[in-house]
Amino acid sequence: MSKALPSYNVTIRIALPFDPRGTATLVKEFADFGAIVTGVDMVESDEDTLLTDITAKVDDIAHAEQIAAKLETLDGAQVHGIHDSTVQAHIGGKIEIALKRPLRTRQDLGRIYTPGVARISEIIAKDPEQARKLTVKRNTVAVVSDGSAVLGLGNVGPKAAMPVMEGKAALFKKFGDVDGWPICLDTTDTEEIISVVKAIAPGFGGINLEDISAPRCFEIERRLRAELDIPVFHDDQHGTAVVVLAALINALKVVDKKIEDIRIVVSGVGAAGNAIIRLLKGQGAQDIIGVGRNGALGPFRQEEGEDRNWLAQNTNPRGQEGTLKDVLRDADVFIGVSAGNILTGKDIATMAKDPIVFALANPIPEVDPIEAAEYAAIVATGRSDYPNQINNVLAFPGIFRGMLDVKATEVTDRMLVVAARAIADTVLPEQLNANFIIPGVFHPTAAKDVARAIRDEFKNSTAESM
Amino acid sequence: MSKALPSYNVTIRIALPFDPRGTATLVKEFADFGAIVTGVDMVESDEDTLLTDITAKVDDIAHAEQIAAKLETLDGAQVHGIHDSTVQAHIGGKIEIALKRPLRTRQDLGRIYTPGVARISEIIAKDPEQARKLTVKRNTVAVVSDGSAVLGLGNVGPKAAMPVMEGKAALFKKFGDVDGWPICLDTTDTEEIISVVKAIAPGFGGINLEDISAPRCFEIERRLRAELDIPVFHDDQHGTAVVVLAALINALKVVDKKIEDIRIVVSGVGAAGNAIIRLLKGQGAQDIIGVGRNGALGPFRQEEGEDRNWLAQNTNPRGQEGTLKDVLRDADVFIGVSAGNILTGKDIATMAKDPIVFALANPIPEVDPIEAAEYAAIVATGRSDYPNQINNVLAFPGIFRGMLDVKATEVTDRMLVVAARAIADTVLPEQLNANFIIPGVFHPTAAKDVARAIRDEFKNSTAESM
Repeated sequence: MSKALPSYNVTIRIALPFDPRGTATLVKEFADFGAIVTGVDMVESDEDTLLTDITAKVDDIAHAEQIAAKLETLDGAQVHGIHDSTVQAHIGGKIEIALKRPLRTRQDLGRIYTPGVARISEIIAKDPEQARKLTVKRNTVAVVSDGSAVLGLGNVGPKAAMPVMEGKAALFKKFGDVDGWPICLDTTDTEEIISVVKAIAPGFGGINLEDISAPRCFEIERRLRAELDIPVFHDDQHGTAVVVLAALINALKVVDKKIEDIRIVVSGVGAAGNAIIRLLKGQGAQDIIGVGRNGALGPFRQEEGEDRNWLAQNTNPRGQEGTLKDVLRDADVFIGVSAGNILTGKDIATMAKDPIVFALANPIPEVDPIEAAEYAAIVATGRSDYPNQINNVLAFPGIFRGMLDVKATEVTDRMLVVAARAIADTVLPEQLNANFIIPGVFHPTAAKDVARAIRDEFKNSTAESM
Repeated sequence: MSKALPSYNVTIRIALPFDPRGTATLVKEFADFGAIVTGVDMVESDEDTLLTDITAKVDDIAHAEQIAAKLETLDGAQVHGIHDSTVQAHIGGKIEIALKRPLRTRQDLGRIYTPGVARISEIIAKDPEQARKLTVKRNTVAVVSDGSAVLGLGNVGPKAAMPVMEGKAALFKKFGDVDGWPICLDTTDTEEIISVVKAIAPGFGGINLEDISAPRCFEIERRLRAELDIPVFHDDQHGTAVVVLAALINALKVVDKKIEDIRIVVSGVGAAGNAIIRLLKGQGAQDIIGVGRNGALGPFRQEEGEDRNWLAQNTNPRGQEGTLKDVLRDADVFIGVSAGNILTGKDIATMAKDPIVFALANPIPEVDPIEAAEYAAIVATGRSDYPNQINNVLAFPGIFRGMLDVKATEVTDRMLVVAARAIADTVLPEQLNANFIIPGVFHPTAAKDVARAIRDEFKNSTAESM
């Protein structure tokens, strides 16, 4: 697990006295520091000086600074700057507004703005449902966060959450052609978040809650679902649960087990763990044990908080008490949505035959996937640099695409299940194996398949209820 | 004033039995109804039938329906539908999200989303000011309305306000390269609007309030300006006031009068009237009379509401009481931001020599501009089909462009003045005349000139305060 995380590419610009071997010297310095040079670009060269941009993969910014400091000690060298490609990619933000139609003439102006727009307002004033046809509400999702549980960083606040929510909006557009707009809230008060989201809802076709810490996220989602007429989806819960279910459907095929028969241990009973356990129970899983910081939850102990206590009273039918390692013994499936490096290969070895390990903590999984693979039949992680990446981007763009297409007013549990099946089905029977239980994020049809499944489910359930 | 409003273009699709003169017959029917045919497109033609799309300018949808009903009475004719081009132009909304950078590879994904984005969040968590550089906050304005005073339609609610706010966002992009996002609020409660806007502010670089009714708009703007660290601008007030000042600067040049010497009557003391009076006072106007529904305001009477009473006590130095028509006598300038058809040419005839008339009520001006022109030296309206259109789009895109460029934390009165001067200056001395006191909305440099003036003013005022 000493591998550098991806995406740390830097470019160091350096001036050297002219020397035919100058560039080679530089590349050697990078290599000595364990950095992989991926590009050498001459910026300027004359009789006296070489100005060169060296691009390299490094571990982190400190690593780049060490290298730059060393380069400065070379005879006559001068480092002009360290350019971080990830930072560059975020300058000015990652999304912008585009006009759907040209605005070049007075006629265009009179049509999309005054006086023509007044007629559209009148149509909607008479029939508010027309907003779903004649405004961006048709295709728009608010990506709402309070910045209280951002990635693995914790409560970094609304401004620091913006790059993540913007990134999410970019993924919505790319994978689902959904127009997501980031709304980061300067409050972590449950009631205030509820009232703000309700207040801004008229212009949106859906609400994607994101990176809001448990247990507030449960109450916020429940209330908004009850009080709004557009779908409300907390991606950390349901997006994760959908992709976990998709991966589990395929993993169980590989090891030839049935969900009704297996023992499942879920490490982490926050937003994701909670939703995963509920979704798997709904799919017939009988024996699930959730494990929190104080060990296994079960009917033997009351838990604080409505949602957490519900889990305790409705899981762990064999009443197993103890630590994660205790209850993992003889389990068929481990699902980790907790913290890095809490298990070793030896713990995996205590599981039942052909164990399935989903170690989803990011960036450091619960167990080293290489070590886990020595004992497990199947290993999946949240990372892109190992096989079987469990990535929410397989779910949320298609789910919202489908819901917007049918003007759904709510997300149903059935929608989550059909979405998971659609993702699982993108892996064809002849492709399915222990290293390919889930499609890659750039799978050409996964999001469309999910959207279609959502639309079909909506139509079926609407037909049934009539 | 019986002219049809612009932008009512319809296309009627009609099937007729084949006849070489069929199309001519159709066009004649349109003409008989006073509609102007602008296009005839054959959709299908065979031995039996002609299927034709006739596009025409009509007065309103009832007019189009009358024509369609008449066409149906033609021998063998069948109308397939009436297609309204303005409605078509709004289907699905007028703006969408675009990605600023490609998202095609795993490397792109790892840079703009996890894991790379975590580093950007960390940078902002340590220094929240970096959000102005590394997120859309750098270029984004929330276009906020509660739908309580939409165009001339009144309190139509948040969904019916959406087409207008989207249109505004489109204008922001087109004229200022500013990314505006429409936020229409499901509340008209002053305190709730304030708290919602404060809550969503972290992700925006500015707040453009729009179509919020007086007097709530004053309190909302005042409080938000005090409590937020980004500029808050109520366009109905200040956008209008800026363009009125720009037009007045040039109009006074044409008639060779000075602002200090003239008598000004402002009809309408809501959002726009209030801001116009304050801005003109700040520019040296001594003799302004505001007129509301109960006649002239002045120090002789207390008014309800803090802002309205301030106006009463600080204008009308000669203490003139009476109706609009009473106080208009001998005035040099009439500025109407009230209601249509409340004055006639005869009223304008009672004004001082070379009167200036800005009749800005939309769509029907306070006085018929053709009639007014018989007596006035200069006439301006809010409409695009007369000379001298006073249009806010000359102001707000450039004002926000400039404020975002310098990361301004507030809008100052000085900014409004320099913006007005920049707009006025786009009309060159050799161009200036009674029919050209203000540039057209598609003027090639007006928004850029305004933005530059704002930046310069910001830099000067920052330098002075140091």
